[in-house]
Amino acid sequence: MKLVRHGPAGTERPGLVDAQGRIRDLSAHVDDIAGKTLSDEGLARIAALDPASLPLVDEGTRIGPCVGQVGKFVCIGLNYSDHAAESGLDVPPEPIVFMKATSAICGPDDGIELPRGSVATDWEVELAVVIGRHAKYVSEADALSHVAGYCVANDVSERDFQTKRAGQWTKGKSADTFGPLGPWLVTRDEVGDPQALDLWLDLNGKRMQTGSTATMIFGVAKVISYLSQMMSLHPGDVISTGTPPGVGMGIKPAPVYLKPGDRLALGIEGLGTQTQLVRAAD
Amino acid sequence: MKLVRHGPAGTERPGLVDAQGRIRDLSAHVDDIAGKTLSDEGLARIAALDPASLPLVDEGTRIGPCVGQVGKFVCIGLNYSDHAAESGLDVPPEPIVFMKATSAICGPDDGIELPRGSVATDWEVELAVVIGRHAKYVSEADALSHVAGYCVANDVSERDFQTKRAGQWTKGKSADTFGPLGPWLVTRDEVGDPQALDLWLDLNGKRMQTGSTATMIFGVAKVISYLSQMMSLHPGDVISTGTPPGVGMGIKPAPVYLKPGDRLALGIEGLGTQTQLVRAAD
Repeated sequence: MKLVRHGPAGTERPGLVDAQGRIRDLSAHVDDIAGKTLSDEGLARIAALDPASLPLVDEGTRIGPCVGQVGKFVCIGLNYSDHAAESGLDVPPEPIVFMKATSAICGPDDGIELPRGSVATDWEVELAVVIGRHAKYVSEADALSHVAGYCVANDVSERDFQTKRAGQWTKGKSADTFGPLGPWLVTRDEVGDPQALDLWLDLNGKRMQTGSTATMIFGVAKVISYLSQMMSLHPGDVISTGTPPGVGMGIKPAPVYLKPGDRLALGIEGLGTQTQLVRAAD
Repeated sequence: MKLVRHGPAGTERPGLVDAQGRIRDLSAHVDDIAGKTLSDEGLARIAALDPASLPLVDEGTRIGPCVGQVGKFVCIGLNYSDHAAESGLDVPPEPIVFMKATSAICGPDDGIELPRGSVATDWEVELAVVIGRHAKYVSEADALSHVAGYCVANDVSERDFQTKRAGQWTKGKSADTFGPLGPWLVTRDEVGDPQALDLWLDLNGKRMQTGSTATMIFGVAKVISYLSQMMSLHPGDVISTGTPPGVGMGIKPAPVYLKPGDRLALGIEGLGTQTQLVRAAD
């Protein structure tokens, strides 16, 4: 099942994608793609609906971030061995954890705003996990049962803010528009094995990132179990699981960073595509 | 004006503290101490009410965290020069920024749960700032007009998780109960100068931390202006501004950390007192 949020920013309504790829409105059945709706029971209630009975949403309607009311936006750093190598950093002995501001979350095609003073804004296609059930001290074996579904994320990163401004990475990860999520939240039953998905990202039509979640250092189940030892995960929390090789920071002989007018396209097998036009902050 | 949230965890109701120190219920007037209620206009509407017209809340009712629906919980590290020295770290050239999980937030007297495997859980009394109005690229001169008010925070920290687990500090800052906020949100008009407040913390009746916000390296206005260059701040966001000397990590000849049965008391001049019994996680 593919769940979406459609409409103007801040007032998105819940919807689903039908077998023909059209968006159907769920407002009569759920308040939002958020919180309790993400539980197995909540998702089963939506799955029991006949899509043909739901109102069609106008084509061209804006798609918002695919999950609402996100409590926290946790990210895993350096979680693909090739990306660690291109960053000149060792493979970490346990997951590196940082947070993005939830205010960075936006729709998949809203575009990316370069913060004032930015000289090093970079891209990172990532598999994001949306939690469906409270997780605290969960085992790796049980971890995936706490997942509602998966989506595409772009962990947009200002490298100078992240690494040259006296610390912690969150500084370079949290600007408005630095967290496009979607287009769809694809439920875990439809995704199957989260460690067998191809990821890709194009800059101005040129392939920059290619990878597979098969080469993650710490897989989704491990990441959830690990995080749940250090914090409670709640329905609607988002975990972005790291990026494969090909970020701008790692390009030789000199890094390549985003500039106004650039166009990004990125996607994950079965989870849809994002497209972003880069602009400067006002 | 002193605003509170009272009742069971997760279903707190809004209230205020009257001139006699009693809690009065505000449920008939506002949904929560959160979001738009924190704007100057929202606060003015509450201030216009006659407290005597509001229902008294039963004595002994639990006090929850003094702000609800927190979007993000941003913290400043090493923001008192003496605390940086006791930590063996240089004074930072610009604010160090990290995030606590919003799921760590709890009431001022709910107690502290030591995470499984914790051997180094520490205390940090801090002045927390609650944002009342959206802040993006705001000047230092304008920054304090974006503040709804202030409260006491304990930035509870597991030092091994924070520093010995392959990085970023958020790992040691985010466990359940690691973010007591309150008892009150004191509006900025009542606080006056946020850089002239005494802070203190006692462990089992012994004074451990003593300080004044006068010795902050980066004051509240600077911190808000600085953060607003890197992320949008929204109503209900909380910024904890760092801790003065006297944390357990800095004690010579050996650090002192929390153990089950310990009792903390901490407070800030004019902002009230928190008391916490320490327990082990189940």
